[in-house]
Amino acid sequence: MSAPDVTIREVALRDGLQIETPISLSAKIELLEAIVATGVREVEATAFVSPSKVPALADAAELAAALADFDQGVEFSALVASPNGARRAIAAGLRSIEYVVSAADGHSRANVGRSSTEASGQIAEIASIAHDAGARVEVIIATAWDCPFDGPTPPERVLEVISAATAAGADRLAIADTIGTATPGRVVSLIDRVRAAVGSLPLGAHFHNTRGAGLACAYAAIGAGVTRLDASVGGLGGCPFAPGASGNIATEELVYLLRDSGIRTDVDLSATIDAAAVAQRLVGHELPSALLRAGDRILGPPCRPS
Amino acid sequence: MSAPDVTIREVALRDGLQIETPISLSAKIELLEAIVATGVREVEATAFVSPSKVPALADAAELAAALADFDQGVEFSALVASPNGARRAIAAGLRSIEYVVSAADGHSRANVGRSSTEASGQIAEIASIAHDAGARVEVIIATAWDCPFDGPTPPERVLEVISAATAAGADRLAIADTIGTATPGRVVSLIDRVRAAVGSLPLGAHFHNTRGAGLACAYAAIGAGVTRLDASVGGLGGCPFAPGASGNIATEELVYLLRDSGIRTDVDLSATIDAAAVAQRLVGHELPSALLRAGDRILGPPCRPS
Repeated sequence: MSAPDVTIREVALRDGLQIETPISLSAKIELLEAIVATGVREVEATAFVSPSKVPALADAAELAAALADFDQGVEFSALVASPNGARRAIAAGLRSIEYVVSAADGHSRANVGRSSTEASGQIAEIASIAHDAGARVEVIIATAWDCPFDGPTPPERVLEVISAATAAGADRLAIADTIGTATPGRVVSLIDRVRAAVGSLPLGAHFHNTRGAGLACAYAAIGAGVTRLDASVGGLGGCPFAPGASGNIATEELVYLLRDSGIRTDVDLSATIDAAAVAQRLVGHELPSALLRAGDRILGPPCRPS
Repeated sequence: MSAPDVTIREVALRDGLQIETPISLSAKIELLEAIVATGVREVEATAFVSPSKVPALADAAELAAALADFDQGVEFSALVASPNGARRAIAAGLRSIEYVVSAADGHSRANVGRSSTEASGQIAEIASIAHDAGARVEVIIATAWDCPFDGPTPPERVLEVISAATAAGADRLAIADTIGTATPGRVVSLIDRVRAAVGSLPLGAHFHNTRGAGLACAYAAIGAGVTRLDASVGGLGGCPFAPGASGNIATEELVYLLRDSGIRTDVDLSATIDAAAVAQRLVGHELPSALLRAGDRILGPPCRPS
């Protein structure tokens, strides 16, 4: 099996569920089974953050323990917001962690109570915790385009976080449109600015569909050189600390768009629509994905109406 | 005022309303006022088709009469499906008409009871009716990518309709993703195929967001050379004869995406969000536009959370 053109990381279990009314561990396992059945090779399974801030993910250690029952060809990861979170994730058995650094101070302080520079200063310790356990660490740069408190983020701020992350031993980088304000022109512009600083590290992107442009941004990002994209089945998700944020890009809509545009992923569309339906049933409300309602395009034999 | 990079034609009053429960003429005038206030220079105001098939547009002649009260710098148009419809539109005072030809026989027969070739055969008569009155005629090629009955449409069929349209005197051409199945790769591929046949005629595109890819298609189409795009405030709209079709691309989402990508239109974003809110109130149900809920991106002064 040849490598895909684009690696999709499924984030429904973390970014998708974090603002939802908590669902049971067994419900999460059911969703995880549906997600693993899509063929996706990377799954962000939970976050090791404050249970009081994100009660929906308070069962992170229990979920991590359950991951041993799944296909070990899948890379399961967890998001962390501090060295302590990284230690908890590693102790729970995770071997891939994402550390989020907001490029904007306003969001950084609201999210983790530290400035962006202070948050960057913890990358080295988190990378060390991960690497000592043979784990990899990705630095996700949040509010890479806009901050709900500070307005547009200067690209120089993103470059500073990237420099800090590469110097501190990050294995991967990603840029995140935390509040869903990006558009294709700004996506390409920022990626063009950061590409040299990223060097040979894999670069991913994380988009929300809050203003309808999420898939257009994802497609533009691929054209600009991004090889990794986060997505959430059904478009489940948002950010509890960013007003107005809602709806990760829907995995099935992304897979549909990429498949028909000749860009290969590991992910099966039909199974992804099934997983989105599972997610919708488990959270108990309609999810924003249009494709979940419309289905794959009609490719059957001719059928004349009467 | 310099020419815009992309001309948006607002189609909420026709494609948007045609599958809705009919609203009153005065409600349509209210929506038209909100739409004209956006600065848009082209508005598809109604359709001269069978009132029994499209009862929501049965007041076409009355609406056309009311257009005299509006800014005559706006080009108002009507869709027609036959020479008789063209005659009615011209008699009602319209000086711009769109004639739809489905490239796929299945949709053509379901929509107008004629094959695609038979429908193409009427372009010359319709163009003659329009030109004799000093009006212009655009040929819109429906099901240019997929037909709900026949499956994928061979590009050769689209080229045949384009050849017939250019030979018969069409003033403009547009390709329509009638059932919302297109994706950026297929959009660029088709436009690359048809560009030579289009010659110097203006080429537009019409997308639905049925599977989430509408804006990505619109942006890709611009990159491939399209200079005209249809859109509908709030994402109102669909096609009554194409199962599964729903949601034109939302004008405010398109304007937001283009504005922030450095592509100029005539249309003001804030006024378009207002018009979408008017449309939502008048039809009495939530419209699919995400931007209508989220609003423009936050650009205010720094505001620290407590």
